[in-house]
Amino acid sequence: MIADTAGRMGDPPTVRLLAAEAAGLRFADLPRDAVTIVGLCLLDTLGVALAGRDEPVVRLIREEFAGAGDAALWGGGRTDPQTAALVNGSAAHVLDFDDYAPGSGLHPSAPLVPALWSAAAVAGREVTGRDLVTAYVAGYETQERLGLVLWPSHYDRGFHTTGTAGTIGAAAAAAHLLGADEETTAAALGLAATDAAGVKAMFGSMGKAYHAGRAAEAGLRAARLAVRGMTVGRDALFGDQGFVAASSSASDLGAALTPFGEPWHVLDVLPKLYPSCFGTHAAIRCALELHPALDPAGVREVTLTVPPVLRDVCAIAAPATGLEGKFSLAHTTAVALLDGRITPSSFTDERVRATGGLGARVRLEYDDRIARTSTVLRIVLDDGRVLSAESDAADRPWSHAPEQMRPRIEEKTRALVPAADRLIAALRDLPDAPVLPDLPEVSP
Amino acid sequence: MIADTAGRMGDPPTVRLLAAEAAGLRFADLPRDAVTIVGLCLLDTLGVALAGRDEPVVRLIREEFAGAGDAALWGGGRTDPQTAALVNGSAAHVLDFDDYAPGSGLHPSAPLVPALWSAAAVAGREVTGRDLVTAYVAGYETQERLGLVLWPSHYDRGFHTTGTAGTIGAAAAAAHLLGADEETTAAALGLAATDAAGVKAMFGSMGKAYHAGRAAEAGLRAARLAVRGMTVGRDALFGDQGFVAASSSASDLGAALTPFGEPWHVLDVLPKLYPSCFGTHAAIRCALELHPALDPAGVREVTLTVPPVLRDVCAIAAPATGLEGKFSLAHTTAVALLDGRITPSSFTDERVRATGGLGARVRLEYDDRIARTSTVLRIVLDDGRVLSAESDAADRPWSHAPEQMRPRIEEKTRALVPAADRLIAALRDLPDAPVLPDLPEVSP
Repeated sequence: MIADTAGRMGDPPTVRLLAAEAAGLRFADLPRDAVTIVGLCLLDTLGVALAGRDEPVVRLIREEFAGAGDAALWGGGRTDPQTAALVNGSAAHVLDFDDYAPGSGLHPSAPLVPALWSAAAVAGREVTGRDLVTAYVAGYETQERLGLVLWPSHYDRGFHTTGTAGTIGAAAAAAHLLGADEETTAAALGLAATDAAGVKAMFGSMGKAYHAGRAAEAGLRAARLAVRGMTVGRDALFGDQGFVAASSSASDLGAALTPFGEPWHVLDVLPKLYPSCFGTHAAIRCALELHPALDPAGVREVTLTVPPVLRDVCAIAAPATGLEGKFSLAHTTAVALLDGRITPSSFTDERVRATGGLGARVRLEYDDRIARTSTVLRIVLDDGRVLSAESDAADRPWSHAPEQMRPRIEEKTRALVPAADRLIAALRDLPDAPVLPDLPEVSP
Repeated sequence: MIADTAGRMGDPPTVRLLAAEAAGLRFADLPRDAVTIVGLCLLDTLGVALAGRDEPVVRLIREEFAGAGDAALWGGGRTDPQTAALVNGSAAHVLDFDDYAPGSGLHPSAPLVPALWSAAAVAGREVTGRDLVTAYVAGYETQERLGLVLWPSHYDRGFHTTGTAGTIGAAAAAAHLLGADEETTAAALGLAATDAAGVKAMFGSMGKAYHAGRAAEAGLRAARLAVRGMTVGRDALFGDQGFVAASSSASDLGAALTPFGEPWHVLDVLPKLYPSCFGTHAAIRCALELHPALDPAGVREVTLTVPPVLRDVCAIAAPATGLEGKFSLAHTTAVALLDGRITPSSFTDERVRATGGLGARVRLEYDDRIARTSTVLRIVLDDGRVLSAESDAADRPWSHAPEQMRPRIEEKTRALVPAADRLIAALRDLPDAPVLPDLPEVSP
């Protein structure tokens, strides 16, 4: 419940409007393309999570906290629902290969899907594929509306939106799966807002994956407490002592007030082609374009012209670990120029150290006239020739026409996990599935 | 560990200095007064927590999450250490009767003590009274240094420092109890910084107590992950993409850089005399001073002149619940004028509603020339006479001379919990206790 305080303090009823949209969403409201895309996002998320589940950060969180319980640890084992959300969320984000929302700069599925899988274990009833898809969209649309309000001042201050807005999205999704009404959903959003955290200082370290896990965990907790009857005070999302005011310069709440479907933001989700920070993708595309014509031994100078925002995001000059390499324009560009492809094996500690020579020749120029998602690559060769390319990572490599999208996601999943065919089969036709597939059985 | 990134990104080594102080603290370093005061703070915290443990918000958190485990739920039962920290932390803060740090405006013990009690269950060794006292001071001094850096811009933006700095203090305390070295403590502080959350929109609702619980829980989690080997990136506390930069306007980190003991901040801790927001205490003192001379039936007008900061803190004009009453200058002043005393029973839902008549006559005037901890009360009587009083809540009602402080805390504890004598006996001479007392046995 929202305590009476809300009205009497004169706050605008914004969180109630958002909660009403989220709580009121029904499967029949969803356009067919959204249902298909969500099914593919679930497959994509589970594939990258299964591929990431034994990364050191995920393993150590699991070893420290996993005990007994009913909730699935993807790939094997069970624990309590909160810990499962923490572990699965960290696994979903650790490779930085999970999907991206270009409008708000957040990773949408890594907090949402683990929170939902754990919520299904909490729900105490049979959860169908339709329940899952609808709750995912309720979470996605809430999260993205909030992300758009926060973008870019919140991110520029140093907050990692996947951790912050992700907590609130996960709460909306879990609340929907748990059957919360509008008032309870508003309380869940308020509790999630007061639990939203994560700073960009963690980029390039184990902490970044943890953000997605703790967003899933905290969002689920907020939803469970609200359903249990916890009340909150004034509007903790949009009130003057709430999260948006405290952590951003946002003054226009319009994006949060658009009804669901006007537009459906989930139609814009961007599955990732490369397992590194999205800020490196435009440079990678440029490098892959130039690779066939290039002899790396004859390179004199490599210059990337990038938007200034990337300085605090992915400008690690001399990365020493795979996780740092994912946040290094120098490494990602060098490895793309050398290998002509970017895969998870481009980000082992060994591979990162081995591109040091070419990586050290990559120079960054910051230019605030360039779009926040664009990069220009310029290479001067020893013989004086100049090669150049330009790319905008917001240009979608994926069409959202389902028939074109499905093979790309299935191909990516097959490259990531040995058990891909079982996973693909388990999730095919998810919206018609009577119960959720049992992910522990789909071990990697 | 702190990943190499830290050095190479050129961040100042501030978190390392703080971590070195915290990790290096030994019982022999503590002045005798600090040891005595910490023992009394522990008694005070456990007393208010036992008195608060069956408040609705604490009960519902316990019912939703408590399962099996080794960690004590104060007053009865056991669960896993994370849930115990969440429940005990919420219990410690729910009455708003727990201690206060006047320099930083945070509640120091409510995150620290529950995190420590759970850390003792995690430690897997016998924890002595000296271990506990030393770890408490390591947490307190870290937390307060950070709170002083953040004060007041962080709080003014809308963040609740007990939730945010409290998470970091709890991490420092738990890391100390778990035997973390300097590097591991720095990682714990970084993980806590990226998990620090809480907004003031929750004041007057169940969410405020939850902040102390989640700070204890998240701080403990950060310490456990760091001890398990999790690494973090750039300085997440003081770096340019870290928590202080993202959530405050602080530019002077001097307070965080003072060595422990220069000064010992813990000597300034302020146990509370009234179970309501500290911002209401100056007004309560004024009202109690005027009560003997007053016939409430003859009051025409009541005016409080208060600092503007209280507008967003404790200015609920017409509270409807006990929790709202704790954040209402109108109610706290009215009930003090009517009853001549303030106790937990001043904040039942019924008592809050019953002071509505006089409460409605309390008018607030904001004056930025008045100190942030002061209030002037002016009462005009029907016969034209004017009564007035002025108070500064930062003037300590407690002397820190142990012999004067102990009877006041013991008296307060006896008024709060029936089992006070057993609790007092269990904690007496704590620094010499070979093991921690078993709190479940001290049921309220």
